[in-house]
Amino acid sequence: MKILVVNPNSTRSMTEKIGASAAAVAAQGTEVVAVNPEDAPKSIEGHYDEAMCLPGLLDEIRKGEAAGFQGYVVACFDDPGVGACREIARGPVVGICEAAMVTASMIATGFSVVTTLPRAIPMVEELALRYGMERRCRRVRAAEIPVLALEEPGGNARRKVRDEVLRAVAEDGSEAVILGCAGMADLTAWLSQETGVPVIDGVVAGVKLIEALVGAGLATSKAGAYATPLAK
Amino acid sequence: MKILVVNPNSTRSMTEKIGASAAAVAAQGTEVVAVNPEDAPKSIEGHYDEAMCLPGLLDEIRKGEAAGFQGYVVACFDDPGVGACREIARGPVVGICEAAMVTASMIATGFSVVTTLPRAIPMVEELALRYGMERRCRRVRAAEIPVLALEEPGGNARRKVRDEVLRAVAEDGSEAVILGCAGMADLTAWLSQETGVPVIDGVVAGVKLIEALVGAGLATSKAGAYATPLAK
Amino acid sequence: MKILVVNPNSTRSMTEKIGASAAAVAAQGTEVVAVNPEDAPKSIEGHYDEAMCLPGLLDEIRKGEAAGFQGYVVACFDDPGVGACREIARGPVVGICEAAMVTASMIATGFSVVTTLPRAIPMVEELALRYGMERRCRRVRAAEIPVLALEEPGGNARRKVRDEVLRAVAEDGSEAVILGCAGMADLTAWLSQETGVPVIDGVVAGVKLIEALVGAGLATSKAGAYATPLAK
Amino acid sequence: MKILVVNPNSTRSMTEKIGASAAAVAAQGTEVVAVNPEDAPKSIEGHYDEAMCLPGLLDEIRKGEAAGFQGYVVACFDDPGVGACREIARGPVVGICEAAMVTASMIATGFSVVTTLPRAIPMVEELALRYGMERRCRRVRAAEIPVLALEEPGGNARRKVRDEVLRAVAEDGSEAVILGCAGMADLTAWLSQETGVPVIDGVVAGVKLIEALVGAGLATSKAGAYATPLAK
Amino acid sequence: MKILVVNPNSTRSMTEKIGASAAAVAAQGTEVVAVNPEDAPKSIEGHYDEAMCLPGLLDEIRKGEAAGFQGYVVACFDDPGVGACREIARGPVVGICEAAMVTASMIATGFSVVTTLPRAIPMVEELALRYGMERRCRRVRAAEIPVLALEEPGGNARRKVRDEVLRAVAEDGSEAVILGCAGMADLTAWLSQETGVPVIDGVVAGVKLIEALVGAGLATSKAGAYATPLAK
Amino acid sequence: MKILVVNPNSTRSMTEKIGASAAAVAAQGTEVVAVNPEDAPKSIEGHYDEAMCLPGLLDEIRKGEAAGFQGYVVACFDDPGVGACREIARGPVVGICEAAMVTASMIATGFSVVTTLPRAIPMVEELALRYGMERRCRRVRAAEIPVLALEEPGGNARRKVRDEVLRAVAEDGSEAVILGCAGMADLTAWLSQETGVPVIDGVVAGVKLIEALVGAGLATSKAGAYATPLAK
Repeated sequence: MKILVVNPNSTRSMTEKIGASAAAVAAQGTEVVAVNPEDAPKSIEGHYDEAMCLPGLLDEIRKGEAAGFQGYVVACFDDPGVGACREIARGPVVGICEAAMVTASMIATGFSVVTTLPRAIPMVEELALRYGMERRCRRVRAAEIPVLALEEPGGNARRKVRDEVLRAVAEDGSEAVILGCAGMADLTAWLSQETGVPVIDGVVAGVKLIEALVGAGLATSKAGAYATPLAK
Repeated sequence: MKILVVNPNSTRSMTEKIGASAAAVAAQGTEVVAVNPEDAPKSIEGHYDEAMCLPGLLDEIRKGEAAGFQGYVVACFDDPGVGACREIARGPVVGICEAAMVTASMIATGFSVVTTLPRAIPMVEELALRYGMERRCRRVRAAEIPVLALEEPGGNARRKVRDEVLRAVAEDGSEAVILGCAGMADLTAWLSQETGVPVIDGVVAGVKLIEALVGAGLATSKAGAYATPLAK
Repeated sequence: MKILVVNPNSTRSMTEKIGASAAAVAAQGTEVVAVNPEDAPKSIEGHYDEAMCLPGLLDEIRKGEAAGFQGYVVACFDDPGVGACREIARGPVVGICEAAMVTASMIATGFSVVTTLPRAIPMVEELALRYGMERRCRRVRAAEIPVLALEEPGGNARRKVRDEVLRAVAEDGSEAVILGCAGMADLTAWLSQETGVPVIDGVVAGVKLIEALVGAGLATSKAGAYATPLAK
Repeated sequence: MKILVVNPNSTRSMTEKIGASAAAVAAQGTEVVAVNPEDAPKSIEGHYDEAMCLPGLLDEIRKGEAAGFQGYVVACFDDPGVGACREIARGPVVGICEAAMVTASMIATGFSVVTTLPRAIPMVEELALRYGMERRCRRVRAAEIPVLALEEPGGNARRKVRDEVLRAVAEDGSEAVILGCAGMADLTAWLSQETGVPVIDGVVAGVKLIEALVGAGLATSKAGAYATPLAK
Repeated sequence: MKILVVNPNSTRSMTEKIGASAAAVAAQGTEVVAVNPEDAPKSIEGHYDEAMCLPGLLDEIRKGEAAGFQGYVVACFDDPGVGACREIARGPVVGICEAAMVTASMIATGFSVVTTLPRAIPMVEELALRYGMERRCRRVRAAEIPVLALEEPGGNARRKVRDEVLRAVAEDGSEAVILGCAGMADLTAWLSQETGVPVIDGVVAGVKLIEALVGAGLATSKAGAYATPLAK
Repeated sequence: MKILVVNPNSTRSMTEKIGASAAAVAAQGTEVVAVNPEDAPKSIEGHYDEAMCLPGLLDEIRKGEAAGFQGYVVACFDDPGVGACREIARGPVVGICEAAMVTASMIATGFSVVTTLPRAIPMVEELALRYGMERRCRRVRAAEIPVLALEEPGGNARRKVRDEVLRAVAEDGSEAVILGCAGMADLTAWLSQETGVPVIDGVVAGVKLIEALVGAGLATSKAGAYATPLAK
C-alpha cells in the first residue's frame, strides 16, 4: 500500500519530521512518502495561510494520483482543503486534526488539544464541531509558540508544550491529549511518558486510519459532496 | 461608503447580475462595485472549485484595500475564503450564505435554502451549523440545475427554482426561503410574489449588512482568529 | 425611513440615552424616534418585570403602526415581547440582544456579554440558545450593578462594567464584547478604546439591522409563527 | 396540599374541563382548584395572545399566594409567564408543556406533540429546545383546528386530533403522544385506547409533578434567575 | 400503591439508608420497599461494576413484578440497566440520576451534580446528554471519596461533600445541587440548610416521580425501544 | 498482532460469519480470533438482551487478556458493555457501531444505518449521539427482520436489507450506508455493488481500527472513566 503524506507548508525540515513519524508506525507492506509543495507559506497560522497553501496541496494530490498512491494524509492541523482533496483523489483522504480526534474518541471519553498560537483556537474548535467532537474535545489550548519555533533547536518550545499538556490533564479532566500541530510530531513519546496519558500525534493517527480505510476496501464516497469536480 | 462585492468565479454575466442586485438596494451614499477575478473557475460547484477560486478572490480583496473600500461581500453561497478575507481587510467582510441566514433569522422562525446541485447540500448544511443556524434552517433543497444554467436565457432553470421554493413552503413549514446561489439574484422579487413568503437573496442581504456594520463603526475584530496574517 | 425604538421600561433618562445612541448611527434619511411607556416597571430585571412591561410595549408598537413607522427596535436586553411585536407590526422588529449577537457573529468568532445583575445570566444564555449563538457566546458576565445604577452620575458603575469587559477579553478569549443592557449604550466608544476589541451596543446594532432589513425590502414573514393575531 | 391550576385564557368552559382533568388524578389529600382570569384573551394562539394573558395570570398567582396554595400549574401549552410566576410564588410552578414533555421522557424514548394550529409549531419546538427535549420530541404536529373549536360540541375537532395522533405513531416512530392544548384534556383516555400508546395531557402531568415536588419538600430556587422581583 | 426501590449493589447499610429516605417522602397510601441483590458488587464505581450489577438488578425487578409492584426506582446514580428494567416491568421505572435531573430542571435554570469519584464524572455527563440536561447541568463535580466511605461513621466524607456543594453554588452559578450517589441520601436536609439552595436526592426524586407517573395512569410505552423482550 | 472479536450472543453461525469477515480484511501479521460466550442470549434485540449478554462478554475479554490479545472488537451493533471491556482490557476496545460510524465519517458527509428491527432505532440513535455522529447519521432505518432471520438460508432477509439500503441512498441523501447488525457482515460487497455507495460493515471497520490503534501504540486511557475497576 502506498500512502502520500502532504505537508502543505514549504518548510522541508517539518516535512522530514512528519515523514519520520509516519514511517515509524507504517505497517508491514505500507510505503509512506512525505512531500510538501515548493510554493506555499512557510507555516500555516491562520485562514489566509490556509487559503494560500491550497493550490500547492492540490497539486501534490494530483501528482500522487498519477503516481498511484492509494490514500492521503493532509499533515496540517487546520485540515486545509481536505474536501477538495477528496474530490480529486480515488483513495481515502484524512486531515490530521480529524484523524487525531477520531482516534482519541476511541480511547478516551474526553481530550484536550494543545496547539501553537491562540489565534488557532477558534479554528480547531470549529473543526471539532464539524467532526462531531465538540463534546469530547474538552478544551483547545495554545502553548503560545509560533509554528516555526518548533523547528529551532535549543529553544523552550518543547517545554512550553509539555507544560500545557500537563495543564490539560490537571485542569480539563482530559484522559488524552492531542498535539495540534504537525511540527510537534516528534514529541509524542516523550510527552506520553511525562504525563501518563495517551498523547496523540495526528500524523501517526492519519497514517494508521488511511491504512485502515484502504485495508477495508473503502474510499471516499463519490455519491454526494465529494463527487469528482465537474468539468467546466 | 464604498463596498466591494466579489464574485469569486470568472463568469462576467453573473458578476453583472450580482452588481445590479447590489446597486438596487444600496443606500443613499453607498457606492457598490462588483468584480470578479479573471483567473478562477467559471462556476463554484464543490470543494475543489472553492479552493481554486481563493487566490483570485484574495487578490480582489487586496486590490479593494488599496482602493479604499470599507467593506466586502463575498458573492458565492459556499462563503469561500471569508475567514482569509477577514484577516487581510480592514473593514467588515461577509459571505452571502451567512448574510442571508442571519437576515432570515430576524424575520422568520425557520427557513429553507434552495440551491443548485445536490452536491452542495451538505456544504450548505455545514455552513448553517457554523453560523448557529442549524435549527432555523429547516431544509436545504437542490433545484437540480448547474450554476451556469441560470445564465442561459430561455431555459427552464427559473421554473425549477420556483417549484422548489414552493415545495419549501408547503413541505418544510418554512416561513422564508433563501436562494442558495448568487446567480439567482435576479429572481428574488418574482419568487416572493409567486410564493407569498419573503425570498432572500444573499447579495442583497450582504450589501445591507455590510452597510449596517460600517455604519455602526464596526469592523472585524483583530484580537483572535481573524488577526492580520503573520509575516513569514 | 422611520424607525421606532421602544424602551419598555418607564425610566425617561434611559430612553433619552437610547435615543441619542440610535440617532448617532442612523443613516442619512433615517428618522429614529425613541419612546417608552408611561406605565411600566422602572427597570426590567427578571421574568416578572419582563411580563409586566409587555402591555405598555405593545401599546407603543400599535401607536407606531398608526404613525407609519417602518421598523422597530425593542431596547431591552431580555428581548421581551419581540414575537408579539412581530405579530402586530407590518415592518421588521428586532430586540437588542438578538441584534447585538447577530452583529457580533459577523465580526468575531466568539464574544462575551456583560450584563448588570447575575440573575440575568441564565436569561441571556437562553436567548443565545434561541438565536443559535450558544457556541459563539463564550460567557455571559454580570458587572453586579442594578440597572438604575447606570443612571446615577458619579457612581462606580462604569468602572465595574469596564473591569468586566477587560476580564471577558483576558479570560474568555472573546474577540468582541456585547453590552447587555440598554442603559450602557453611552459607554460603547469609551470601552472599545479601553479594551481594543469591538464593543457592541444592542441599540446601535438594532437600528442598523432594521435599516438593513427595511432597505432590503424585507419584513417579518406572516406565513407562520408571526402571523397577525387571530380575531377572537 | 393545595394546588392552583390557572387557565390563562378567559374561556370558562375550558377551565372547567381542565379542573375536571386535574381533579380526576389528584392524590388523596390534594385539593386542586382551577381558575382563570376574567380579563384575558379567550384563547391563546400566538405570541400576542400570550403576552396579553400575562397580567391576568400573574394576578391569579398573587391571589393564590394570599390563599396559601403550595404549588401551581399554568394550563396553557405555550407555558406563558412560567418564569414570572416562579419569581412571585413560594411553591413550585410548572407549565403544562414542560410537565408533559418531562413526563413523556420518562416513559418513551421519543414522542410527538399534537397541537391545534400550525402557527404554534415553532413555539412548541422552541419550548422543547428550552427544556432539553429537542431530541426526544420527534415532531410537533398541528391538527389544523382553532383552540375554541375544541369547545364546540358536535364538531369534527376530536376526529382531527385522533387522526393526527395516529399519524404521529405511524410516521414519526413516536412511542408516546402529547396533547398540545389544555382544551384537549378530556380526550386523553379515548386517544390512548384508539392508538395503543400513552397519550399525555399536560394538565394531568402538571398536577402530578407539582404534587411530587411539594411532596419532596422542594420549591423554586430563589438563588438565581427566579429570585423574588426586586422592589423598584 | 406499591413502589420497589432497588439498590443494585449489595451493601445492605446503603439499602437501609435509601429505604429510609424513600419512606420519609412517600405519600399517604404509598408503600415503598427497598431491596438489593445478594450477588452484586459492593459498590458501583465504573462501567465494569455497572455491568456486573445487572443480572441481580433485573432479578429484583422480576421478583417485584411477581409481587405486584406498580413502579420501580433504580437507586444507583449511573442509572444502570434502566432500559432493561423498562422492558420487563409493567409499571414505570426511573433511575435516580434521571429523576434528580428532571426534578432539578423544574425548580432551577441550572444545577451541579456532586458525585463521589472523578472517574464517574464522564459517566454522569453522558447521562445528562441522554436526558437532554447537558445545558442545565452546569458542572459535574467529584468530592473525591469512594462510595463506601459514605457508610463509615466518623469520617470526613460528609464535610467533603458539603464543601463541594458550596463550591458548586459559588463557582458554577448553579441554583440547585444534585447529590450524585444514593449513599448521600441522608445528607440532603443538612446540605440544603448549609447552602441555601435546593439540594436534591435522587431517591426522593425517584419515588415522587414514580408516584406521579402511576398516579397519572402512565406506564412505559411498549410501542418501541422498551417493548417486552422477544422470546428466543 | 492478536485481535479478539467477541460476538456477545451465543449463535455460533453468526460468530463464524463474523470471523470470516474479520479474517478477510486482517492485515499481514494480524491474527483474528472470533468467539462467543456459551451462556448468552441467542440474539441481542433490546436493552434486556443487551444486559443479559454482559457477563459472558466480559468473561471472554478476561480470557482474552489471559491469552495475550492486544485489542478487542465487540461484535454487536448496540455496542454493549464496551466501557466495561475498556476497564478490564489492556489494549484498545471498540464496538462495531462506533467503528462503523467513525469509518463512515471519514469517507462521507452523511450516512444511514440499516438495522434489523424498529425497536433498535432509538438505541442506535442514542449511540450516534454518544459518538458525536448525530449530525452525520442522517437516518436509522429498520429492514423489519429479526436478527436470526439473517441466518436462515433461502429467506427474503437479504432482499429486504438491500431495498432499505437503496431507500437510504434515494431518500436520505446518504453518501454511505452502515449495516446495523453483525449478522449482515457477509452482505457488504454485494450491497456495495447493488447501490454504488460505500456499504460499511462494523466488524470490518472494527478490526481495521483496532489494528490502527495497536499499530499506533495506543491503548485505552486509564486516567479517567476507563480506569481499572476498583477492588472491593
